[in-house]
Amino acid sequence: MLSGSQIPKRQTVEVSLGDRSYPIEIGTDWIEQFCDTIAGVLGDLSHALVITDAAVETPWAMKVATGLAKMNTTGGDSVRVNLLAVPSGETSKSLTQLDTLWQWMLESSTDRRSVVIAVGGGVIGDLAGFAAASFTRGIRFVQIPTTLLAMVDSSVGGKTGINLPTAKNMVGAFWQPAAVLIDTTVMSTLPDRSYISGLAEVVKYGVIDDAPFFEWLELNASKLIERDDEAVRYAIAQSCRSKANVVGEDERETSGRRAILNYGHTFAHAIEATAGYGEVLHGEAVAIGMQMAANLSIELKLCDPDLLQRQTALLKACQLPTTYAAADVNAMLPVMKRDKKVSHGNLRFVLPERIGSVMLLGEIEGSGVIHAIEACR
Amino acid sequence: MLSGSQIPKRQTVEVSLGDRSYPIEIGTDWIEQFCDTIAGVLGDLSHALVITDAAVETPWAMKVATGLAKMNTTGGDSVRVNLLAVPSGETSKSLTQLDTLWQWMLESSTDRRSVVIAVGGGVIGDLAGFAAASFTRGIRFVQIPTTLLAMVDSSVGGKTGINLPTAKNMVGAFWQPAAVLIDTTVMSTLPDRSYISGLAEVVKYGVIDDAPFFEWLELNASKLIERDDEAVRYAIAQSCRSKANVVGEDERETSGRRAILNYGHTFAHAIEATAGYGEVLHGEAVAIGMQMAANLSIELKLCDPDLLQRQTALLKACQLPTTYAAADVNAMLPVMKRDKKVSHGNLRFVLPERIGSVMLLGEIEGSGVIHAIEACR
Ligand SMILES: NC(=O)c1ccc[n+]([C@@H]2O[C@H](COP(=O)([O-])OP(=O)(O)OC[C@H]3O[C@@H](n4cnc5c(N)ncnc54)[C@H](O)[C@@H]3O)[C@@H](O)[C@H]2O)c1
Ligand SMILES: NC(=O)c1ccc[n+]([C@@H]2O[C@H](COP(=O)([O-])OP(=O)(O)OC[C@H]3O[C@@H](n4cnc5c(N)ncnc54)[C@H](O)[C@@H]3O)[C@@H](O)[C@H]2O)c1
Ligand SMILES: [Zn+2]
Ligand SMILES: [Zn+2]
Repeated sequence: MLSGSQIPKRQTVEVSLGDRSYPIEIGTDWIEQFCDTIAGVLGDLSHALVITDAAVETPWAMKVATGLAKMNTTGGDSVRVNLLAVPSGETSKSLTQLDTLWQWMLESSTDRRSVVIAVGGGVIGDLAGFAAASFTRGIRFVQIPTTLLAMVDSSVGGKTGINLPTAKNMVGAFWQPAAVLIDTTVMSTLPDRSYISGLAEVVKYGVIDDAPFFEWLELNASKLIERDDEAVRYAIAQSCRSKANVVGEDERETSGRRAILNYGHTFAHAIEATAGYGEVLHGEAVAIGMQMAANLSIELKLCDPDLLQRQTALLKACQLPTTYAAADVNAMLPVMKRDKKVSHGNLRFVLPERIGSVMLLGEIEGSGVIHAIEACR
Repeated sequence: MLSGSQIPKRQTVEVSLGDRSYPIEIGTDWIEQFCDTIAGVLGDLSHALVITDAAVETPWAMKVATGLAKMNTTGGDSVRVNLLAVPSGETSKSLTQLDTLWQWMLESSTDRRSVVIAVGGGVIGDLAGFAAASFTRGIRFVQIPTTLLAMVDSSVGGKTGINLPTAKNMVGAFWQPAAVLIDTTVMSTLPDRSYISGLAEVVKYGVIDDAPFFEWLELNASKLIERDDEAVRYAIAQSCRSKANVVGEDERETSGRRAILNYGHTFAHAIEATAGYGEVLHGEAVAIGMQMAANLSIELKLCDPDLLQRQTALLKACQLPTTYAAADVNAMLPVMKRDKKVSHGNLRFVLPERIGSVMLLGEIEGSGVIHAIEACR
């Protein structure tokens, strides 16, 4: 457990996936150096396609694009840079936007040596990542996440894709980035509610994988709320480390190991689906969902009630919700049964055994689930 | 070199790609056994999505679909089967058709354990393969090719994808099938011109990779023209063996090795692009393109004129064109310069050194190319 002054200003977390391994580089106030890092990681760089969210085009994506345009290829020409800003919001993860990207990549004379640079939150990373995975059957890409959720979750692990009109993340590819570059400074423009929402995923890693980190969070939650640079860097690095470990063991979600990342998420998806649009952010739903899962675990005598108390206290210290008065069991249950994690009609859940360790349990009856939801109202 | 009676009735060619390896099973009149083979290869089979070409829905795709519907899962339920017929023709390799497939897969309750079964020519294999590669980031698929071109070329090697309005095969994925099942009998409904066109790719394997096979073709061309079962099976098996070897050395087209499969194709693409729509079939263009490439090779003193004579004689014996009176150099050259195989404005070609061996040559000047085209008019 590191205290403030011991936390390095720049850290690398390695994602180990054989010849698809890549570094996550985490620092503060270093976006001006991203271009050199990208060129170094790629080896050759002649054409960059910067795909960004309209909300972060200025200043963040522009900083990266202008930096790249000043660089030279190994042949001495200047690097060719194209930039496209996509409208903000989940609706951009659509076939229509993907088609727009493909056309634009074609018109920009994209070839196998071009690189896609995604600058934005999870929406941009997922969309641009799938465009990179599919154009000429796959070109390199670099993730520059700009939300806390993207930094600790969506930019790591290689899941890319878009939504179908009635099904989220239904099509896409596993396509690993060549690097993930994180500058905590880009969050200076990020609203508090979005930042805090991202903290729910950070707490999640503590519960599912890393008890010492959970303890560190208990001691340092106030620093995270104040967005203390060192604390934020440390929390991001530990989160990425947990996610990288899980992904390294189950890259394509075949062994079941990767499912532990869904702690709280079966409940959360049902909350998001039944709440009014934009009422509850994803991380807020995850916080509540983890509370429901902990209650279920206690009910099934899989863990000690103390776990729920510590989780509740930490979520509160992170200013996240721990209850959900509007929870509607009758609306939530059918959604959960349609969830991909259901097998043969019985519900499957990721349930905590103790801080730092969870288990996957299938065949759970509806009555226990109902009690768990009701306990959080 | 095998003579008729030594050619086995059923053959397996293995594509060796580590944990993505798969068998190509080649036989005659055995489509009724495909279901058992599919179940055997997959291990588990509970839901099949048969995607086919409207022209082969009856009888070929229906035979497979009804056979599958009679099977039982390991749990004892009957296997769930959905069938979708796509309109015939290259225009079906579109984003619109892909979207239709995705929606249909979603409505058919497709999940990670479902399998896509592509029954058709290269259009269906490429389209259905990409749908399989992308739905929930990748489900298994099986290729049942119904054209000679698909049997010897497109169904092997894992390239899948669709066209953009102005660029063929521009988006897609490398996604290997779980098996390729070939019954030569399905070609009983295939028009002669299409079948003969496919023979051009067969001849190609002899020139680029397999001198003994080229000699066998010289001796057995008339049997192939008569569609003698044993000869056809042998030609398919040898072609698949060559393609499998090349793909095994360069699965994702990164080392350059896979480029030898493009012998004759830079010229062929220019012929196809400048000829009126439907005037020249792909294989016919490849036959002419190989002639142009052989002429270029002789002009550059890379091979003996004897090679061209033997290639010409074999193509003629296969009833394929060896000249192209309508060749328009001024129209073809700009197309070739736009081809993906151009690097920095200079043309790159696959050129034969001797029967069974080709080399990749860049930096070729336009004048030599012009002479080679003119020599084939
Ligand atoms: N690929 C994965 O493994 C994975 C994992 C989790 C979530 N996801 C996906 O991620 C998406 C959610 O990600 P998200 O929460 O980052 O959403 P998002 O990308 O929509 O960003 C949230 C909002 O913040 C704005 N924004 C982003 N960066 C900003 C900045 N620095 N300053 C000001 N505003 C900024 C955006 O314009 C947007 O309005 C979902 O589509 C989800 O499916 C993917
Ligand atoms: N993936 C690869 O590696 C690869 C390699 C080469 C070509 N291709 C692609 O393959 C496509 C061409 O393949 P194709 O020549 O098989 O074209 P195709 O699939 O369009 O089939 C040609 C025609 O034959 C008909 N047909 C198919 N089987 C038949 C049968 N048994 N009886 C009667 N009619 C039948 C079809 O309806 C179609 O009209 C192109 O899109 C090309 O890009 C892909
Ligand atoms: Zn989440
Ligand atoms: Zn071809």
